[in-house]
Amino acid sequence: MKILPEKTVERLSQYRRTLNNYVAEYGKSRIYSHELAALLNITAVQVRRDIMFIGYTSVQRKGYNIKDLIQVIGNIIDSPDSINVAVVGYGNLGKAITTYFAGNRPKLKLVAAFDIDPKKVGSEVNNVKCYSIERMREIVALNDISIAILTVPTHAAAEMAKVLIQTGIKGILNFTTVNLHVPSNIYLEEYDMITSLEKVAYFVKHRPLG
Amino acid sequence: MKILPEKTVERLSQYRRTLNNYVAEYGKSRIYSHELAALLNITAVQVRRDIMFIGYTSVQRKGYNIKDLIQVIGNIIDSPDSINVAVVGYGNLGKAITTYFAGNRPKLKLVAAFDIDPKKVGSEVNNVKCYSIERMREIVALNDISIAILTVPTHAAAEMAKVLIQTGIKGILNFTTVNLHVPSNIYLEEYDMITSLEKVAYFVKHRPLG
Repeated sequence: MKILPEKTVERLSQYRRTLNNYVAEYGKSRIYSHELAALLNITAVQVRRDIMFIGYTSVQRKGYNIKDLIQVIGNIIDSPDSINVAVVGYGNLGKAITTYFAGNRPKLKLVAAFDIDPKKVGSEVNNVKCYSIERMREIVALNDISIAILTVPTHAAAEMAKVLIQTGIKGILNFTTVNLHVPSNIYLEEYDMITSLEKVAYFVKHRPLG
Repeated sequence: MKILPEKTVERLSQYRRTLNNYVAEYGKSRIYSHELAALLNITAVQVRRDIMFIGYTSVQRKGYNIKDLIQVIGNIIDSPDSINVAVVGYGNLGKAITTYFAGNRPKLKLVAAFDIDPKKVGSEVNNVKCYSIERMREIVALNDISIAILTVPTHAAAEMAKVLIQTGIKGILNFTTVNLHVPSNIYLEEYDMITSLEKVAYFVKHRPLG
């Protein structure tokens, strides 16, 4: 299969999340494209196009079989092997992420944390141990870690990204407000909390409410 | 001015963030649409269209004046008055957000936190005080809070959203993995960490790297 566009991967991940919640909440086994679309505030045409694109079809007039669809999405977007992830920066945000990911995605394993603060080194949250930055290269190799979640303070972000790249990491999820520059063989995703909040603020002020 | 589409607001917020970083990093005063586009991994056509849409134009061949553009974006997406925000759930994530927002956006003020845990009530991070859930209605009214950032555990999310809506809040930024159902007069933004990580995982595995 061809590599999917970024936005498609994003939507497929959102479909799966929404379908899992839908089953948990309503216990139903089927869903129509327009229902899934409404839950995500997008068009039914978009949903049908994405799902057709990954080769899944609904039975006419009966909607999608939710269990099958979750499975098909997993086959497409999950890696067959699990992917090991590290959190870099073990402050409140790093710890929150550790708690959040616990058991949430079996194919994504948070296996280590790193911090510069000697007081944090050796500590554990959910069995995820914190190591010193000096040991990063060794621990990344030893645990076959390919993704880093960067949650260090702003002033340390650029330098830490450099160190990370030298360890052989392949992807970075950047939670800092700094725009990182990475070589083209590193996949970078910026995760900006401010943008989401600014969106809410804009629509709270501008949307015709009532 | 007409209400902007959601995706446009999102991009404008990202443009501003990127421009601020660009000035801080390179100290330049002008930028071309293709440079801004490259920093955000989108097309220059998209950048030009968005910026034309908000009524700003570049001087031919000289690119945009960055300071002016930041100002224009602010005039469009920021509220003229500041908007007060509360964090609901004062665990690691709630505290991380409190630290993160400190001084980051003058028009968005984090003024209170809420938690069910009596041990957290009364505690402070960056002068943001934590109150009990029982006092939510009173504190929201007293401080004119219009946006809540929801960071409670999964099992408490739906119930807490209900309580929040009764307080008269107008927008919710949902950090939990639960899909919330809110009345149409409440603006809801879902902020899903898993989707970002799944995207990184997909492209780490599938992108031709090199």
